[in-house]
Amino acid sequence: MTVFYEYKRITTKKNLIFQEVIVNGWVRYFRSNRFIIMNDGSTLKDLQIIVMESNFSKELLKKITIGIALQIRGIFTESTGKKQLAEVISTVIQIYNKVSVSEINKTILQPKFHKPETLRDQAHLRFRTKLFSSIMRIRHQLSFCAHEYFYYQGFFYIHTPIITSSDAEGVGGMFKVTIFNLNDLPKDDQQYIDHTKDFFGHETYLSVSGQLEGETAALSLGQIYTFGPTFRAENSNTLRHLSEFWMIEPEIAFYEITDNMNLAEDILNYFLIKILKRCKEDIYYLKSKEDMLLERLQLIVDNSFCRISYTEAITILTSQPKIKHTIHWGIDLLSEHERYLVEHFCRPIILLDAPAEGKAFYMRLNDDEKTVSSMDILFPRIGEVIGGSQREERYELLLNRMQTLDIYEKPYWWYLDTRRFGSVPHSGFGLGFDRLVQFITGILNIRDIIPFPRTPKNAEF
Amino acid sequence: MTVFYEYKRITTKKNLIFQEVIVNGWVRYFRSNRFIIMNDGSTLKDLQIIVMESNFSKELLKKITIGIALQIRGIFTESTGKKQLAEVISTVIQIYNKVSVSEINKTILQPKFHKPETLRDQAHLRFRTKLFSSIMRIRHQLSFCAHEYFYYQGFFYIHTPIITSSDAEGVGGMFKVTIFNLNDLPKDDQQYIDHTKDFFGHETYLSVSGQLEGETAALSLGQIYTFGPTFRAENSNTLRHLSEFWMIEPEIAFYEITDNMNLAEDILNYFLIKILKRCKEDIYYLKSKEDMLLERLQLIVDNSFCRISYTEAITILTSQPKIKHTIHWGIDLLSEHERYLVEHFCRPIILLDAPAEGKAFYMRLNDDEKTVSSMDILFPRIGEVIGGSQREERYELLLNRMQTLDIYEKPYWWYLDTRRFGSVPHSGFGLGFDRLVQFITGILNIRDIIPFPRTPKNAEF
Repeated sequence: MTVFYEYKRITTKKNLIFQEVIVNGWVRYFRSNRFIIMNDGSTLKDLQIIVMESNFSKELLKKITIGIALQIRGIFTESTGKKQLAEVISTVIQIYNKVSVSEINKTILQPKFHKPETLRDQAHLRFRTKLFSSIMRIRHQLSFCAHEYFYYQGFFYIHTPIITSSDAEGVGGMFKVTIFNLNDLPKDDQQYIDHTKDFFGHETYLSVSGQLEGETAALSLGQIYTFGPTFRAENSNTLRHLSEFWMIEPEIAFYEITDNMNLAEDILNYFLIKILKRCKEDIYYLKSKEDMLLERLQLIVDNSFCRISYTEAITILTSQPKIKHTIHWGIDLLSEHERYLVEHFCRPIILLDAPAEGKAFYMRLNDDEKTVSSMDILFPRIGEVIGGSQREERYELLLNRMQTLDIYEKPYWWYLDTRRFGSVPHSGFGLGFDRLVQFITGILNIRDIIPFPRTPKNAEF
Repeated sequence: MTVFYEYKRITTKKNLIFQEVIVNGWVRYFRSNRFIIMNDGSTLKDLQIIVMESNFSKELLKKITIGIALQIRGIFTESTGKKQLAEVISTVIQIYNKVSVSEINKTILQPKFHKPETLRDQAHLRFRTKLFSSIMRIRHQLSFCAHEYFYYQGFFYIHTPIITSSDAEGVGGMFKVTIFNLNDLPKDDQQYIDHTKDFFGHETYLSVSGQLEGETAALSLGQIYTFGPTFRAENSNTLRHLSEFWMIEPEIAFYEITDNMNLAEDILNYFLIKILKRCKEDIYYLKSKEDMLLERLQLIVDNSFCRISYTEAITILTSQPKIKHTIHWGIDLLSEHERYLVEHFCRPIILLDAPAEGKAFYMRLNDDEKTVSSMDILFPRIGEVIGGSQREERYELLLNRMQTLDIYEKPYWWYLDTRRFGSVPHSGFGLGFDRLVQFITGILNIRDIIPFPRTPKNAEF
């Protein structure tokens, strides 16, 4: 009987030895007209196909080139090589569509070193490289770990809207969504754009966060989380900013800031422990590109996070002659400061109780009336990976704060309502999923851990 | 020792009897100054709190009103009532923020029947109703089932971009994304909008499907799926259309149309079996609103899907005097026709091989050169729940087809590339997640199975 096995399973199933199997994959090399090195993307390790030259026509063998896809029927055996887990001694070789060698050599499929920029320019093909496929398998595993973690903790996954009329962060930097023909805009009597004629009847934007909607769900269902794309129209051309990025946002009723910290620390630990266990092969491959990777991951697992207040952080930073920029209570910490703190404590930091000024309107005011119950989690290398807070549950204080910040209340009537009808202490945070992938894979540029990155001047593919 | 139990667990843990527990929740009723009926959203069943009137001040008891949140400390016992699984005899009652009874009686939190439209107008509060919280728990469970299914089948979850420059369906109806101030648009010499000055340097849209990008991933990683929001700027005000909806899109290399059908049927069955098992309580509650719900769900589980070609369907429909609209080969089937077919066969239908005309450019041309290798899965009540096809993997035929349909090739250079470098037979489909939730919950209007629906003229919250 012929077994049609998905390749990943073939490389690990010992009991297949001497059985006939069928496997599919793309050719990575073809050596000495004898060894085809093939991969189907399911795993890092290649599959070696043994070709008995005399069994096949020269015409057929000539067509087997890098990048072409094959179906192989053959006998499964263990491999004696180190790079492969298994071999198949081929009896039938079927070639899928032809490939032009000269054309393929113009792409990143040519087996030589390619710069990250070149891989990015051919993002549709980089899935087929060892590096990017490893990253994708880890990204996939992390996504599943997120759902798995929350599912078994009794959180409900909520789909909050992407198109929105409100600005969750109150910081601007939002993309507009419209169906207007920009060359022919409907105007009112006073020559202003008539937004009532747009698809939704008013101005709409891409959401920067599902938090506000998430809160309404948490204040009914108890524990919820979102996991979806969010958007920032900021002209940030850095190694750790994307204009479209994925966020995980849990919101929990009856949760105070300490519960919130414990949850954040627990889930980050969960991610790392699971990845180190489930993605060993891919992580070890990435370690070969980035020496300190494993040490950095282990650091998180081995240490509890250091919890300090913003005020304490300022005191520490002030006493450091190495810090160049002027430090005084009230400033926004720069990445230089964050990096210093993380290095100083040799572990991740949960930075608490930031000055109310400069923080979002929904954060709970502390008794000192100067700071809010915020928490930012800082990691080595990537900086902030989580930003969260206990939310302001007191109606009057929330309203005051919005007025102080000149936020027009009307579009938030429903958000304010949740503080009128059964308001309770609650907390939540946003976890930058792409940054977490960046940290775990040790990749320098965030553009290289998401399939098709969106950044200023770049929405190709 | 006091046990701080999440409420869902409290209602089911028999071994808690006579232990002291702490529970949080929102008040649904307060009867005879003696019974507080509370719920924390984790489960359909309420928790009954027994109040010994003499143990508490009149002032305190007066404040306990519908909608208010409480923390109860008390002794856990089994309930003798049928509606609750458990009771807590309260020793300490803590009231969270106050609630105005007259204000709450203006909302849907007032315990009486509210029309679906009214619930929708207060979408931020409807999570707290029995109906909507049931739907949300089922929606959550279905999401997890999707990830679980694919994970254990070895599919990789891929995050395809939301902001895009290409139109996957070639049907228009896309939302534009811009950062332009519409009252002050940058123009070029000829008074046309200068899109190079926009955020991405050219026109961008909200994706209607992650398929094309998903295909590039599948043609490297083998088996992938996407699960995310997609958008249609169509003026469809029906019971089964949303402008923003969630889709699950698997794409699989080395898959032909039959494999594709098998996968689709298998995952739909998986969803139903798991929901019937894991969401029993909520499903039975929904059945009380919609008599035939269980029968309809069981129908899917008990029957293999009927696989017929478009041509066969036309023959059947032509012979039916009941069908009003003119039937001839080539027409797009109307919902009336779909409904007839599903009823005729008393089971879901996989409709195959539709006329090439009117189908998307990426579907594989059949040997008859008139039809494509498409598959649409039709369910009772909701109609199409899945649309898929074997993809055209032959470069020349794909290019021909794009030219026939007047699709400008240049933005699709990367998609065409996948047919030049290791192209293989592959297939996939899109599963309308919201429609599936609609089917499983038996809810008439699709606006009532997603937290904050987006439809023409409606992007509130």
